[in-house]
Amino acid sequence: MSKDRLKIGVVAPGSPIEPRVADQVKEIAAKLYPDNGLDIHFHPQCFLSSGHFAGDDEIRIQAFLEIANDERFDALWFARGGYGSCRLLDTLLRELSDIARQKAYLGYSDAGSILAGMYKQGFTRLAHGPMPVDINRNGGAAAIKRALAYLVEGANESLESSVSFTTKTAAFNISILSQLIGTPFQPSLSDHILMLEETSEYMYRIDRSLFHITSNPDIRGVAGIMLGRCGDIPPNDPEFGQTEEQVAQHWCHVAGIQYLGRADIGHDTENKVVPFGSLTVK
Amino acid sequence: MSKDRLKIGVVAPGSPIEPRVADQVKEIAAKLYPDNGLDIHFHPQCFLSSGHFAGDDEIRIQAFLEIANDERFDALWFARGGYGSCRLLDTLLRELSDIARQKAYLGYSDAGSILAGMYKQGFTRLAHGPMPVDINRNGGAAAIKRALAYLVEGANESLESSVSFTTKTAAFNISILSQLIGTPFQPSLSDHILMLEETSEYMYRIDRSLFHITSNPDIRGVAGIMLGRCGDIPPNDPEFGQTEEQVAQHWCHVAGIQYLGRADIGHDTENKVVPFGSLTVK
Repeated sequence: MSKDRLKIGVVAPGSPIEPRVADQVKEIAAKLYPDNGLDIHFHPQCFLSSGHFAGDDEIRIQAFLEIANDERFDALWFARGGYGSCRLLDTLLRELSDIARQKAYLGYSDAGSILAGMYKQGFTRLAHGPMPVDINRNGGAAAIKRALAYLVEGANESLESSVSFTTKTAAFNISILSQLIGTPFQPSLSDHILMLEETSEYMYRIDRSLFHITSNPDIRGVAGIMLGRCGDIPPNDPEFGQTEEQVAQHWCHVAGIQYLGRADIGHDTENKVVPFGSLTVK
Repeated sequence: MSKDRLKIGVVAPGSPIEPRVADQVKEIAAKLYPDNGLDIHFHPQCFLSSGHFAGDDEIRIQAFLEIANDERFDALWFARGGYGSCRLLDTLLRELSDIARQKAYLGYSDAGSILAGMYKQGFTRLAHGPMPVDINRNGGAAAIKRALAYLVEGANESLESSVSFTTKTAAFNISILSQLIGTPFQPSLSDHILMLEETSEYMYRIDRSLFHITSNPDIRGVAGIMLGRCGDIPPNDPEFGQTEEQVAQHWCHVAGIQYLGRADIGHDTENKVVPFGSLTVK
């Protein structure tokens, strides 16, 4: 992996993206890193469609492995969330090589299933952060720049402000982490600051998922929970009567977990990068 | 607990019911069991409203305990699901007395959170089955009659046909069981036939929840999974491409769990009674 020409491979283990997402992201990258310093390769699998998914399970597994196990790539960037990563976990984790352990991985939302499973297996260069599909958001170029600044330069400005050299961090979508609790893919997050965000879920579901997550014995050993943004919450019928922060505080209180305030993450253009584990000196 | 006058207490640990539900259910009961043989008491808490819930957490806990810990009641019937049972679990389970262990409990959907927690604690007379709120369904009287026949007479006709003296059974709503996995409230279901049903969830969520449930080590020890009805599935965008039964078969296959076919349970009037554990000779 050469420092002078960083090669990023993009795959879509959940839902597909449109080719114009790749075009727009490559255009931004070319402007930010001219002189041939950065090569972003969108695996053709990103644009496939098989029901809900970007190609069937086998195709998505193979595409992921083609990037992850190839030493020419310095980083694997998740194209998009959507849904489908968890379907690959069992096979994928068995087939990742030692080469895969050396590169960086960046994604969030549904991608959290794979990041969790890899973290459980001791991968050290995993991070929650913006994905190519974020270019579709209004002002999405800022998210793409933030992700690239992290992948290419390791820029501190890309990081959520609670990320540090001294405390471990991890960040997840609430629903995705909930659906990993009690499985072999749940990583230990003891002594981590756990940042949680959500999108498009009813308040009663956010409440139920936080009951679930905070009831788990390993989660009860976290250093604290920070609540990211919970966007596009549909109207609850009847009115739920509590905000997402009240709900988070409630469950932290019940679980004896420190509630540490809001985290600067979410399904939006402001979504910051949160490495899994603590920062290390380069 | 006298055989000649059975007393059933109804509480609502999740969402509230309307008074006419109680009236209609009592009317049916009076016709079915005249001569003062059955007394159904709807705790006034059933009709309270506090945001999403039938009264706040403390009120719902107290109402539940007033029925469960009172030796005059032979059975506790969950009025309705909705959402909220999981919020009571931690306190409720600590305050249930030995008297509570002697009576029967019947409910499903959100009530599964409490049934699970009680089963984990060794309660022996728990069952999935119709609730008073089912009277709101078209033809709902049949569900009420089935529930009462089970509670009053222990009628075999009320039971799901796979229920037996030899094999343990349990039944859950998929989302509810998923949100208990990996918590102290998850009961061991090893060697049980596990029946699962769902309502109003997108196919991708059914798929994700079944990934979650079947990935859990204890669940992998079940005798088999039967799929109940999955009703009112909203249209998936894009078309998911697999039916709920294909998805259940897929995850059973991945997990090495026997898929045992369809179960006669669901959020509908045909919903049969499934006792937790095996039938015992009365």
